[in-house]
Amino acid sequence: MRLVLVAGTTAVAAVEGISAAGAHPALMRHTPSADAEILVYGAPVAAPDGTTHPTPVSPEGCPTPAVMTRAAREVLGFDATVVDAGLAAPTGAPTVSLDAAPGRDVRDPEAVPDAHGIFERGRRLGRALPDDGPLLLGETIPGGTTTALGVLTALGHEVGVSSSLPENPLALKREVVAAGLDASDLEPGEAADDPLDAVRAVGDPVLAGVAGLAVGALDAGVEVVLAGGTQLVAAGAVVRGFSDAPLELATTSFVADSTPDLAAACSTLALDLTVTDPGFTDDHVATRHYRAGVGKEGVGMGGALALAAEHAALDDTRERIRLVYDRLLDGEGP
Amino acid sequence: MRLVLVAGTTAVAAVEGISAAGAHPALMRHTPSADAEILVYGAPVAAPDGTTHPTPVSPEGCPTPAVMTRAAREVLGFDATVVDAGLAAPTGAPTVSLDAAPGRDVRDPEAVPDAHGIFERGRRLGRALPDDGPLLLGETIPGGTTTALGVLTALGHEVGVSSSLPENPLALKREVVAAGLDASDLEPGEAADDPLDAVRAVGDPVLAGVAGLAVGALDAGVEVVLAGGTQLVAAGAVVRGFSDAPLELATTSFVADSTPDLAAACSTLALDLTVTDPGFTDDHVATRHYRAGVGKEGVGMGGALALAAEHAALDDTRERIRLVYDRLLDGEGP
Repeated sequence: MRLVLVAGTTAVAAVEGISAAGAHPALMRHTPSADAEILVYGAPVAAPDGTTHPTPVSPEGCPTPAVMTRAAREVLGFDATVVDAGLAAPTGAPTVSLDAAPGRDVRDPEAVPDAHGIFERGRRLGRALPDDGPLLLGETIPGGTTTALGVLTALGHEVGVSSSLPENPLALKREVVAAGLDASDLEPGEAADDPLDAVRAVGDPVLAGVAGLAVGALDAGVEVVLAGGTQLVAAGAVVRGFSDAPLELATTSFVADSTPDLAAACSTLALDLTVTDPGFTDDHVATRHYRAGVGKEGVGMGGALALAAEHAALDDTRERIRLVYDRLLDGEGP
Repeated sequence: MRLVLVAGTTAVAAVEGISAAGAHPALMRHTPSADAEILVYGAPVAAPDGTTHPTPVSPEGCPTPAVMTRAAREVLGFDATVVDAGLAAPTGAPTVSLDAAPGRDVRDPEAVPDAHGIFERGRRLGRALPDDGPLLLGETIPGGTTTALGVLTALGHEVGVSSSLPENPLALKREVVAAGLDASDLEPGEAADDPLDAVRAVGDPVLAGVAGLAVGALDAGVEVVLAGGTQLVAAGAVVRGFSDAPLELATTSFVADSTPDLAAACSTLALDLTVTDPGFTDDHVATRHYRAGVGKEGVGMGGALALAAEHAALDDTRERIRLVYDRLLDGEGP
């Protein structure tokens, strides 16, 4: 069992009101680097150059889903490998680099000029990883649902995407995506036969990396679980340009309940959908925010919770979430 | 429990006859990258750029000690983190980079021009790592016993160093070190008050990184185990320029039995010496070579075996070594 977390950034995160993956837009570039550290070590650590990252919380104080995934990892003991697909800030976590630059704004002519290269390097790594059970692929990239919407639109899939915000700013995302397609001279659906061109035009480097890793692992006959929400649906859509192998998408009930098109999209893309309700309650700040619709998914949370459910370890994971949260955000109390 | 493997290279490895850490001198630049992959994944994997590394074996076919450490890790389940302190070939293993270049030949005026910077970045990382039990520090750097001899000599310690070869080419090492000190305008013992200057002049980047990590972890009150042989003694000598905290050195009986000065050196440096006899037999190629004096130590082997002994898991580890070996070198048989 291994979770590969693909971590990167996109300039889209800087669009006001588009993401909750950080207490403030200026902090969002730190979120993926901090998520990697929380997954690997259980807490942010200083990078060797001295860079430190605050624990990612939404503007309302909702903790990053890295907390949930780390908690499941502490209970289940699965391996975690972080892949750098465009980090903008150094991390103290060990990473395998796909030699990817941060993603540009999708309203630039090219959002990911090297999409093909990142995909190929991800594919090589995916082929090379040992087959030690299901390979879970997760993501951390603030602004990533907007680039996911861009790619899905360019590929001709009419799927709404999820949001880390309780009120999904879908109109704003559609506006950004429309401007992005326009800047890339693409009509909706026009990239259907060339998914990497969609990523190049209006995607992000994490999508290129996740898709490459998935295709490489499927090439090698490894069972792949896309661990996440609508961003992983977009990755699945890219994968389907290269492989028809069985593929699972494991996400949280928070995403499934707020994304009416999810089941249909998974059906269209032949993604075997697993939805896990973590059974959160309102009596702790870490879980209350999720019940209020913040956060929802990320850092492989849906896949990690599905594993926990499969191993009858959801109760233990919920208990562990409090420990991990307290370790990270000591003093803020429930 | 965490093993941090500090991996790097030095041009000294290219000196004919100085190291057995590779079947051929030209392959030695691959050894640390492959060792990292074996420790993390259980076998070499292709790096994202397509670089592949052969499993490191000595010219006679003795497998890298990464096999032993990986076996102990599979039995005990400790975390492993790889730190890049001057790798010369890309690795598929995730790494934290200390932003170190490969070490130069010690006979150049400066072997590690940025020794201070590498040490400081290692120190920051060592301070930042979570305190999850004893921190084991191991190394992989072909040619590293020669640079260790260089640093020990520059610091005024008259300690013989060990070898991955059954016949230790100590005269050759002393000759290289003497030329190195000469090129750096240093007399033996002259750098006693400035251990990082010894590393800069005649050391290697892994020594700078290990010493920095150890000092940082000791700063943070974490228990540190130097997991290795005479290279780790040299690291300990550097650490003693910065910290008087308790410090353990855990190595194999292969090093201890062939290094008469080891106990005295540990005593001088106040290193608490643990020697583990892995109880190898002659009935398998992986272990037979070690009994014949090849390999001896590396990739944290001494520390990993000490942990196994402490947890009454040496028998399981020996059994596991066969499995790991067969996975790596399938078909070569016992």
